[in-house]
Amino acid sequence: MALLHDEAIEALLEGTSWRKDGRTIVRDFEFANFNDAVAFVNRVAVDADKADHHPDILIHSYRKVQIRISTHTEGGITMRDVELAKAIDTVV
Amino acid sequence: MALLHDEAIEALLEGTSWRKDGRTIVRDFEFANFNDAVAFVNRVAVDADKADHHPDILIHSYRKVQIRISTHTEGGITMRDVELAKAIDTVV
Repeated sequence: MALLHDEAIEALLEGTSWRKDGRTIVRDFEFANFNDAVAFVNRVAVDADKADHHPDILIHSYRKVQIRISTHTEGGITMRDVELAKAIDTVV
Repeated sequence: MALLHDEAIEALLEGTSWRKDGRTIVRDFEFANFNDAVAFVNRVAVDADKADHHPDILIHSYRKVQIRISTHTEGGITMRDVELAKAIDTVV
């Protein structure tokens, strides 16, 4: 899968809560408490497994989650990342 | 709960897989795959909830997990952190 150009990434992320950070796309989430954050991570894990594409997931500050997606085999951002981001947006 | 002195922290962590990193204690874990990593995180979440003490948890590189524990109210490392670390060691 081809790496996306910066302009394409910006266009694809426009209007979403995701941002480009280096060779990854990132979104920060905040929940009511730790258990809600963990429950969300489990929903993300289901999506990740379906897509066979596995983001980095940080649970921090009791109730916050940061998701970071990249296509490591390509060394950057591809449509697979954008598609997983959109899938994650449906399970927040 | 009182902050631990560096010597006490070193003594308490000796022989464990935890290390002191600034104002936190840290351990890195590696599993067979992403699902095993997520299952471990769920076991950690149960312990964290029991202890009412919530570590930062990073799932990364497909099958790795990093756990970072600190007592934020005290601004450093206390026995609560060491106790949670030991609880986590029993669910790896």
